[in-house]
Amino acid sequence: MAKRQTLFKEISPSEFFYRNRDLAGFSNPSRALYSATRELVENALDACEAAQILPDIFVRITSADFDGALTDPKPYILKVQDNGPGIEPKYVPDAFARIFYGSKFQLKQSRGMFGMGATMAILYGQVTTNRPVLVTTSVDGEKAYTFELMVNIHDNTPLVLNKSVKPAFGKTGVSVQLTLEGDYGRAGSKIQEYFKQTALVTPYANILFIDPNGKLFYYERVTEKMPKPAKETLPHPLGIDLEALRRLLKESKESTLKKFLSKNFHRVGDRIAEDFLRYAGLDPNKKPQDLTNDEITRLGAALHSYDKFLPPDSRCLSPLGEELLATGIEKELQPEFVAVVQRPPSAYSGFPFIVEVGLAYGGKNVEAGLKLLRFANRIPLLYDEANDVSWKVVNEEIDWKRYKIPQDAPLTIITHVCSTKVPYKTVGKEYLADRPELERELKNGLREVLRRLSTYLSRKSTLAFVKKKMNIYEKYLPLIARFSAELSGAPRPPNYRKLLKKSIEEPFVENSEKAIEGERVDYGEEVVKFEQRRLEEYCR
Amino acid sequence: MAKRQTLFKEISPSEFFYRNRDLAGFSNPSRALYSATRELVENALDACEAAQILPDIFVRITSADFDGALTDPKPYILKVQDNGPGIEPKYVPDAFARIFYGSKFQLKQSRGMFGMGATMAILYGQVTTNRPVLVTTSVDGEKAYTFELMVNIHDNTPLVLNKSVKPAFGKTGVSVQLTLEGDYGRAGSKIQEYFKQTALVTPYANILFIDPNGKLFYYERVTEKMPKPAKETLPHPLGIDLEALRRLLKESKESTLKKFLSKNFHRVGDRIAEDFLRYAGLDPNKKPQDLTNDEITRLGAALHSYDKFLPPDSRCLSPLGEELLATGIEKELQPEFVAVVQRPPSAYSGFPFIVEVGLAYGGKNVEAGLKLLRFANRIPLLYDEANDVSWKVVNEEIDWKRYKIPQDAPLTIITHVCSTKVPYKTVGKEYLADRPELERELKNGLREVLRRLSTYLSRKSTLAFVKKKMNIYEKYLPLIARFSAELSGAPRPPNYRKLLKKSIEEPFVENSEKAIEGERVDYGEEVVKFEQRRLEEYCR
Repeated sequence: MAKRQTLFKEISPSEFFYRNRDLAGFSNPSRALYSATRELVENALDACEAAQILPDIFVRITSADFDGALTDPKPYILKVQDNGPGIEPKYVPDAFARIFYGSKFQLKQSRGMFGMGATMAILYGQVTTNRPVLVTTSVDGEKAYTFELMVNIHDNTPLVLNKSVKPAFGKTGVSVQLTLEGDYGRAGSKIQEYFKQTALVTPYANILFIDPNGKLFYYERVTEKMPKPAKETLPHPLGIDLEALRRLLKESKESTLKKFLSKNFHRVGDRIAEDFLRYAGLDPNKKPQDLTNDEITRLGAALHSYDKFLPPDSRCLSPLGEELLATGIEKELQPEFVAVVQRPPSAYSGFPFIVEVGLAYGGKNVEAGLKLLRFANRIPLLYDEANDVSWKVVNEEIDWKRYKIPQDAPLTIITHVCSTKVPYKTVGKEYLADRPELERELKNGLREVLRRLSTYLSRKSTLAFVKKKMNIYEKYLPLIARFSAELSGAPRPPNYRKLLKKSIEEPFVENSEKAIEGERVDYGEEVVKFEQRRLEEYCR
Repeated sequence: MAKRQTLFKEISPSEFFYRNRDLAGFSNPSRALYSATRELVENALDACEAAQILPDIFVRITSADFDGALTDPKPYILKVQDNGPGIEPKYVPDAFARIFYGSKFQLKQSRGMFGMGATMAILYGQVTTNRPVLVTTSVDGEKAYTFELMVNIHDNTPLVLNKSVKPAFGKTGVSVQLTLEGDYGRAGSKIQEYFKQTALVTPYANILFIDPNGKLFYYERVTEKMPKPAKETLPHPLGIDLEALRRLLKESKESTLKKFLSKNFHRVGDRIAEDFLRYAGLDPNKKPQDLTNDEITRLGAALHSYDKFLPPDSRCLSPLGEELLATGIEKELQPEFVAVVQRPPSAYSGFPFIVEVGLAYGGKNVEAGLKLLRFANRIPLLYDEANDVSWKVVNEEIDWKRYKIPQDAPLTIITHVCSTKVPYKTVGKEYLADRPELERELKNGLREVLRRLSTYLSRKSTLAFVKKKMNIYEKYLPLIARFSAELSGAPRPPNYRKLLKKSIEEPFVENSEKAIEGERVDYGEEVVKFEQRRLEEYCR
């Protein structure tokens, strides 16, 4: 029997992602240019928002080949600069040139989720162009530190090639400049779409983008209102696994299990802790550090099956809010009709989330046909649409006939999911898993905005209908008025013009309210009846 | 201006994948049970094949809750055992309980690609049930070592809880037994489908699977022929990046650039190396270790743009081969008609690949309608079909009308891609990226098997047609024969039976060959003409 012994070896995290860069969205020059831009812009926006600074983001992509002799794919220089709080210089080498070192490893809503976007962009730039990244940071507005960095991929450690200090002239923030192989010819339209959609969900940001052809895209701030910053939160008992539970118990400073539960879990107070421990059959006064392995397993199972925990609190989330979302949609799409809905907070396996749904109909920038714009924690998601839970809901779970919207209506649907943990299915953050709780909230939100559109379209068609009616009334009403005046012996015919005007305005108020609550109302008949009644009353 | 400093921290690879287990296919109890089974089975098959041992794989899933009181999701015990060469005991703790430590980090075709499947399964089991994994291994058939392991997630190190030795009774191989939260109620049908499809591409393996309900699934070996094992290969110049190039140069023991190129690259000999260095404008006698950063960049760019490198050699690949694939299809699907095609080797960004396409039509186990079975390096891919390059080719790039196959025909298409690097888009290995080279080969392979099916269906309908014709000939030929014998004064009529028999057999040989090469041939008319000619010749 032929035998061969297997060879084993260990690789570093950098090495793993260097070998498998497809996994993080860096699969080819076009996609990589898109991903690098997006990761740096998202870090910039996260930094500003966490510090509650109105973001001013500057992005420039230039060809690294200055005489323009090369064709795509070719090296590009990508620069992204923000006005955020800056990063302490001592953290810079690790934060930018080390995989699995970052600021996103907390239970908190942020655009970044895996803490490796910037490092992946730098790593990709390095392996395709052999050039270092330049990172400039200032936290005090006095001194700006510039680092020239590369990643030692084999060991996953940063290499500082150079470091210098200059005056910052009062400006704080971070600027990152890297060289990478890209393909703007292919990626250009996606990158432009990315900025357009980002502007839609961050109407409080100034974003300036200069593309390699020197074309300038400027998305101007239209509101100074920012969403409340997200807060870090304690884990919810429903979402805790045994590993996390063991760690909490081990590191616990509390003297009793009861105190341990109420200190370490989201929305667990003394009373719930007591009731729960009775349910779990564990002694409330036991020391958390003394639990045996079997007791930990039992505690974990009980945490998952006890059904009286309060649902997660959404205060740790930072949704856009209906006002900001509507502002963004109106600014970018200038539609004829807008509807936005924020659903109440919900949760999946212990992670709170909020769904916001917007709808834009008609107008200047809304194209014919149905278009879906997906967002998660304020990131536009542009790839792999057909795998996304929002796509599933829009295309498979809505009974479109109910809303009587014409098939090729100019309609754009916007979905925004924010959560302390967005259920992405790839490191490249392309699409969201179809968790049933998420599906339910998206469906409810979508139904609500569709109902509103349906009502609006109804009103619009009623208006046309009433106008047509009025044309007929206008023709005959003077005759009837004169005739009735003559019959009753009145000195002159009544003022029928007032009646005509009132007949157009009033029915809408009554019926549109009714429609928003439930089914679509067929205005046609009601309006006719109403008109008849009015006429009868008047002529009596 | 409110400011908050960002907090940075580092996490271990285990910690990263523990937090983001969705990324590796462990998103919920149903999916996790499927992924864990699959990862362990694939390691078992890889081990046997690398050692050229005919695989005997035993898999058992049992409920860990022996009194059956719990409902899904609940803890299950998963056991996978192989008859491979075994793993040296000293490697066991790291190989099973450490992320980024493994045997798959080579440029070589294998089912495993990311080297983390088993560790992810163990990690998932640990965080959901708090139980250690049991790994038993024997490399000599004398001693079998059993390890009781857990993962120290925080540090990414193995924890050996226990270790024991027993006699192995002549058997080598590895057995893994872990406890994990699963949902067999939901995952069952996928797991069964997984085994069925695995049997289809490994007809040389015995696979025995016992499910939690005690149901036994046995896939028996039908051939002792195994595919040739895959070999490790040197990198192809087209696929090399600057990081890999820099490392090769640094570690090079060669004294000249020319020797460096011919020793370190796939299919680069002295002559090509010389010609290439002239093209790149680099001195062939320069020491590889002396290249400057700029020269490395230039060398890298030239390696990508030089167009006279030979294409990658497929000897490092281990496709199934047409014979084995057909055996597998016949065994599992028992179709009326089978066609298999192995395309010539091709490459994408320097990675060689081979596409094999099979088709099964009609018969016992092929359902009505079009079904697609996707495989990559002999792994069945069951999830996210609509994202896969094969799905795209089948549904969007084939002009089905050309092949005149009825819409609801019982038709199953099998695609198999094998490569030293399969372009998966997720760590969970669900689907392949649509690289253009891959798309082209799949399309060509698919066209070929469809042409063959088309020819077969044609022949089938011609057969029906000819039979009908023959019925008519049979009626009139005796009369004509007798009449012509009388006219010519022959003593007795010619033997028309021989003519009738020949007329049925011959046209098929001629026409079916013609059809395989190109378009479908309409036999009807040709057969009629042929018959007429024969008749005329005979009667002359």
